[in-house]
Amino acid sequence: MTQPLLLRNIRPMGGEATDLLIRGGVIAEAGRGLDAPDAVVEEGGGALALPGLVEAHTHLDKTLWGMGWRPHQAGPALMDKIETERRLKKEWNIDPARQSARQVVQSLRHGTTHIRSHVDVDDAVGLAGMEGVLATRQAYAGSMDIQTIAFPQSGLLIRPGVAALLEDAMRMGADGVGGLDPCLIDRDPKGHLDVVFGLAEKFGKPVDIHLHEPGQVGAFSMELIAERTRVLGMQGKVTISHAFCLGDPDLAMVDGLLDLLAANNIAVMTTGPASRPAPPVAKLRARGITVCAGSDGIRDTWNPYGNGDMLQRAMLIGLRNNFRRDDEVEMALDACTWGGAAVMGARGYGLAPGCIADIVLVSAESLAEAVVSQPPRALVVKRGKVVVRDGEVSVRAP
Amino acid sequence: MTQPLLLRNIRPMGGEATDLLIRGGVIAEAGRGLDAPDAVVEEGGGALALPGLVEAHTHLDKTLWGMGWRPHQAGPALMDKIETERRLKKEWNIDPARQSARQVVQSLRHGTTHIRSHVDVDDAVGLAGMEGVLATRQAYAGSMDIQTIAFPQSGLLIRPGVAALLEDAMRMGADGVGGLDPCLIDRDPKGHLDVVFGLAEKFGKPVDIHLHEPGQVGAFSMELIAERTRVLGMQGKVTISHAFCLGDPDLAMVDGLLDLLAANNIAVMTTGPASRPAPPVAKLRARGITVCAGSDGIRDTWNPYGNGDMLQRAMLIGLRNNFRRDDEVEMALDACTWGGAAVMGARGYGLAPGCIADIVLVSAESLAEAVVSQPPRALVVKRGKVVVRDGEVSVRAP
Ligand SMILES: [Zn+2]
Ligand SMILES: [Zn+2]
Repeated sequence: MTQPLLLRNIRPMGGEATDLLIRGGVIAEAGRGLDAPDAVVEEGGGALALPGLVEAHTHLDKTLWGMGWRPHQAGPALMDKIETERRLKKEWNIDPARQSARQVVQSLRHGTTHIRSHVDVDDAVGLAGMEGVLATRQAYAGSMDIQTIAFPQSGLLIRPGVAALLEDAMRMGADGVGGLDPCLIDRDPKGHLDVVFGLAEKFGKPVDIHLHEPGQVGAFSMELIAERTRVLGMQGKVTISHAFCLGDPDLAMVDGLLDLLAANNIAVMTTGPASRPAPPVAKLRARGITVCAGSDGIRDTWNPYGNGDMLQRAMLIGLRNNFRRDDEVEMALDACTWGGAAVMGARGYGLAPGCIADIVLVSAESLAEAVVSQPPRALVVKRGKVVVRDGEVSVRAP
Repeated sequence: MTQPLLLRNIRPMGGEATDLLIRGGVIAEAGRGLDAPDAVVEEGGGALALPGLVEAHTHLDKTLWGMGWRPHQAGPALMDKIETERRLKKEWNIDPARQSARQVVQSLRHGTTHIRSHVDVDDAVGLAGMEGVLATRQAYAGSMDIQTIAFPQSGLLIRPGVAALLEDAMRMGADGVGGLDPCLIDRDPKGHLDVVFGLAEKFGKPVDIHLHEPGQVGAFSMELIAERTRVLGMQGKVTISHAFCLGDPDLAMVDGLLDLLAANNIAVMTTGPASRPAPPVAKLRARGITVCAGSDGIRDTWNPYGNGDMLQRAMLIGLRNNFRRDDEVEMALDACTWGGAAVMGARGYGLAPGCIADIVLVSAESLAEAVVSQPPRALVVKRGKVVVRDGEVSVRAP
């Protein structure tokens, strides 16, 4: 049993200073001048307190973090990135257990307490990615909540045996079923989505589909996804990641899609991509659509960028959406906190009494300042236990 | 006279490890195993060495840095931002001398050694901005090279007396003449550009014009700028900042503009804006067009973002341009180093013997890694003098 913890003089969400008393990993009490003789006391010094940050879309199994600088090799086409990665996974021995552990520790350093990771399942690596990430989930269970999405990165129908492997991954304990560009990669949108939603139905798990498809073809795939969500009663259990087609200049088309997403309670994940059309976050939120955020791949064979800091991600989403007012910048932060928690179905998320004590302290006057300046994480608390102090993480990676 | 400095075991531009001996503020010698009994020795430990970073477009006179968090107030229209700023400059007492000093120190912390600042000249503040920034230039002359561009932020012809004030600013010692959206703000492109280029000719100074105008109207203004550049023989002395019209989807129009820019040796400044069309950096470079980079306003009444780190700026430019390969990411960095130095006409810029010793050391394997990870600046040297060590700046701001 963790010892009780008293966080003194902190400002939840940048509001008035208060104390939080944590018992049994849960926020037991909030108020000024709390006292608890049995508790360890941490002086917050007026720091701003956030709930644990949520990385709602990444690829733990294949980051190159800690493997030295490896110049990007792939060409611009999606299929070239896929083929290059298949080759380099072998050549470079990108070990999913080791690499996922490294990224988990790096994310924790930045105050992330929840991660949804897509995990490659294909005819080249089979279930090795799942095995590695599940091992990391177990090893770091005390410091990070990790969800896995079984993800047919190389294609589902165009590669022999992947559908069966995906089902094996669900049996191993994957928390959701992934999909990928039903038209442009698998060239068979009906076939692709029937497998994905079929598995979701069979195992009673949510769906999270990578949809890079632009414009009208993306819209077509999105309609098919919404239709299956409705028919299967999966409202609130489906996420569309990237959803570039929602950034299309054809606003009438986009409006129709937003109606479909809202009607079926389908969430959208954005990275705030600077070089692609992107979902207009404020518009989605105005329709009541849940928006979550992710780094996507961090320093992998797809892309050299990323550091796992979800406050930096909030800044990038703010810049992409031209958010300047505090309430706008806070929307970007919300995607990296409550939005992600909603998508992950994280129970007891938040800073109120009764919530699980996942808490990040930073030196900032306001939420917007925390986003634009990304201060070092003074303290990160996971289920009532201090796991990061002044950027120093209490757990190690291989 | 500064004492000689010997930088041992550093890797200029990420290449082979070497030593640099600096005498009289100039790189005197490069090679392995250098010795100089009269020199102070700094052990680089294999750090990557960059030339001083160049902030080629910012607004020193009006940052809110160090003034506490001030939520953004302006609406989305350009004119609303202008009017809001005019009001808040008074209400908040945004002192140009104090504020420019604060930003200079913040930029220096991140290894910036050269700054080109546009400085507001208008009927509300008159020449107070110029006076403040010139005072800062003098106060920090040992640590930062600062250029001023007299900038009619509120409009040139639509405000009484601004043209005469701009001329006064040139007499005070402004290093260049600024301009702003000749069509959409001044509504008189010929009149606007005749004043700007007239002053440039009269004082023999370069021109740097803010051009936010999109698509065809931006193209029209750009044509007028190129025409004046050619007729006045000002090739190599004109910069177009932002140049959003170069990010237009009408590629035939853009190609024609790039021909004009290349033919007249007109440089382009980009911030890598995530929410606006942006100049395609690789295309510009392939045509031989000089590209420089800037933060634009840092935490001011226009925009809450920015920290003065030109490595972060390089990352944003890389993300905006979808740069993934090392040679691509290096193009983004080049805009923040050599590109900016070219635009500022910085003499003796670089890391070769004979260059002025403005040097930044960071822990990174490669140039691309320095851009994506933005490591703390281990050492910053300005004209042979150590001005930053482990992020600690040797000069103070008010
Ligand atoms: Zn992904
Ligand atoms: Zn500007």
